[in-house]
Amino acid sequence: MAPHYKLTYFDLTGLGEPIRYLLNYGNIPFEDVRIPKSSWPDLKDTLNPPLGQLPLLEVDGEVLFQSIAISRYVGTVVGLAGSNPLENWQIDAAVDTVFDLRIKIFNWYTEQNEELKKELKETLVREQLPYYLSKFDEWAKKYNGYLAVGKLTWVDLYFIAIIDFLDEFLPGFIGKPSLLTGYSNLEALKNTVTGLPQIKKWLETRPKSEYLKL
Amino acid sequence: MAPHYKLTYFDLTGLGEPIRYLLNYGNIPFEDVRIPKSSWPDLKDTLNPPLGQLPLLEVDGEVLFQSIAISRYVGTVVGLAGSNPLENWQIDAAVDTVFDLRIKIFNWYTEQNEELKKELKETLVREQLPYYLSKFDEWAKKYNGYLAVGKLTWVDLYFIAIIDFLDEFLPGFIGKPSLLTGYSNLEALKNTVTGLPQIKKWLETRPKSEYLKL
Repeated sequence: MAPHYKLTYFDLTGLGEPIRYLLNYGNIPFEDVRIPKSSWPDLKDTLNPPLGQLPLLEVDGEVLFQSIAISRYVGTVVGLAGSNPLENWQIDAAVDTVFDLRIKIFNWYTEQNEELKKELKETLVREQLPYYLSKFDEWAKKYNGYLAVGKLTWVDLYFIAIIDFLDEFLPGFIGKPSLLTGYSNLEALKNTVTGLPQIKKWLETRPKSEYLKL
Repeated sequence: MAPHYKLTYFDLTGLGEPIRYLLNYGNIPFEDVRIPKSSWPDLKDTLNPPLGQLPLLEVDGEVLFQSIAISRYVGTVVGLAGSNPLENWQIDAAVDTVFDLRIKIFNWYTEQNEELKKELKETLVREQLPYYLSKFDEWAKKYNGYLAVGKLTWVDLYFIAIIDFLDEFLPGFIGKPSLLTGYSNLEALKNTVTGLPQIKKWLETRPKSEYLKL
């Protein structure tokens, strides 16, 4: 019997969306539990997540945590891992680089000091976003339209889902419709991923989620 | 013919040491290139690392970057990965949690504002270090003396190598001989890892490295 999957996350795309993309890619049915932000403080005590954080993915009762580790697990289960350790290194290196960019964005997002926050935003817009997006664009060109290995792997779905999330709030201040605008190899990758029948269907039918208020 | 391995890193334990532990564990000969900090600005232009950072691991000329991805690659090659996707998730979740702790330490370490740095240190010593170390200790108890899966995997070597590094500069201000002092399951894990014949030999024969000056 197929395992029962239950994803618990906020009512957001965020770090849950790569997992939702990957489960959909594999046609794996899952409970998509979405916790309203207002209920989180109470639910946190009840749920008691291993590191106090979401997302969690329950697989036949076992509670998986750490969003990237969960994404790699689901990516492997749905057949989107590499076919040897060197291919998996390439996928992992790209994923870790997406995480590096996310840390920069997170540092800006959580900065309390207004003046410092303005400086962090400047650095983000002028240096860090272009640096990382150019790098990803270069890889997509090098690897036949994908971020690694020359074929579709879980990092492609992971990346486009994270961009999907970032595009909800970042384009406003960079003055472009999407973070990917102008990066032709990444725009092509987005078309590839969102054109996959399972992902296309997911994007058409997924619940409208809470947006990050900035 | 066995591939040729060349590790390029600073003359530090740091993020290179987990890779050195893992290569030694697998009895894999490697060039251990150590760049003095003073030479880095010049060498950076010559080496031109994919993300401007070290460590790099060359495997038969292919240049691997991103330290965790490299560690996972070497961990797999030397037979210290899990035996199925769920076991690998458990290893990865523990590794990502070590990284979470490293981010907290890094944020304190790089903070320029003296007052803020003092606050970050307080939070680190009173909350974050105990939180994460207790968590790791709990896992080591739960998983039969290891951080995951109930047997030796690459996260055990990864963790002890990172502690090896942190213990060079953190114990001074926490007033204990090691970050692990008082966490009996982690002290036992350290004995297990440093008692492995290959690691024991490495620790006895490795070069004395530059220490972080704080």
